[in-house]
Amino acid sequence: MSTRRTFIAAAAAIAATNAGASPAVNNIPKLVHHVFFWLKNPQSKEDLARLLEGLRTLAKIESVRAVHFGVPASTEKRDVVDNSYSASEILFFDDTAGQKIYQDHAIHKQFVADCSHLWERVVVYDAISA
Amino acid sequence: MSTRRTFIAAAAAIAATNAGASPAVNNIPKLVHHVFFWLKNPQSKEDLARLLEGLRTLAKIESVRAVHFGVPASTEKRDVVDNSYSASEILFFDDTAGQKIYQDHAIHKQFVADCSHLWERVVVYDAISA
Repeated sequence: MSTRRTFIAAAAAIAATNAGASPAVNNIPKLVHHVFFWLKNPQSKEDLARLLEGLRTLAKIESVRAVHFGVPASTEKRDVVDNSYSASEILFFDDTAGQKIYQDHAIHKQFVADCSHLWERVVVYDAISA
Repeated sequence: MSTRRTFIAAAAAIAATNAGASPAVNNIPKLVHHVFFWLKNPQSKEDLARLLEGLRTLAKIESVRAVHFGVPASTEKRDVVDNSYSASEILFFDDTAGQKIYQDHAIHKQFVADCSHLWERVVVYDAISA
């Protein structure tokens, strides 16, 4: 319950902040866990759908505060933009302890067991607010 | 005003969702623009501070819905984790049009003019909800 209360408070703070002068919002949880997947069969819509379905199960893990599952956006092509990946997973945690709970969680292990045959490469970035 | 109203509604939705059965929240804006910077002088705390200061100016751009500025988190070291970068910038937009407004914005150009001498490498990932 306490984590729910915290997030309701955070949501209220978003509303309060946004009613003020600044259009920007900054109540994103502090720890961002961003994972990029390159599928073995990047042309397979079925494999992508299966991976995204597996990723969505991770939202059930209790320390996960917010999620974003995506694919490359059709923004302008530039040399610095890497749009070669197949799927993007972002999980938001309060802290590294929350990320560790996820890392060791049965739901996460089940996802890896079910889906790891689909990808040939994974890159993970963990960033903490600064 | 309409974008502010939209976000207040979204914040209310976060509160409503979170008061329900699921602890996970999913009101993150749809387009995630994630940039990683590798400083020329990765040991320089001054250069990192200057870069982060520059990044924070980007929050003023009107199409930016939320921001996360960070550094590598001290999560478990694993082969798949890239913690070699110096700073992480995440900007959240409603759509690719919002990202384009940012890309062409005077504040963004000023940031590049002021800070691009600090970094030796940049990698950008744009992900849209799927």
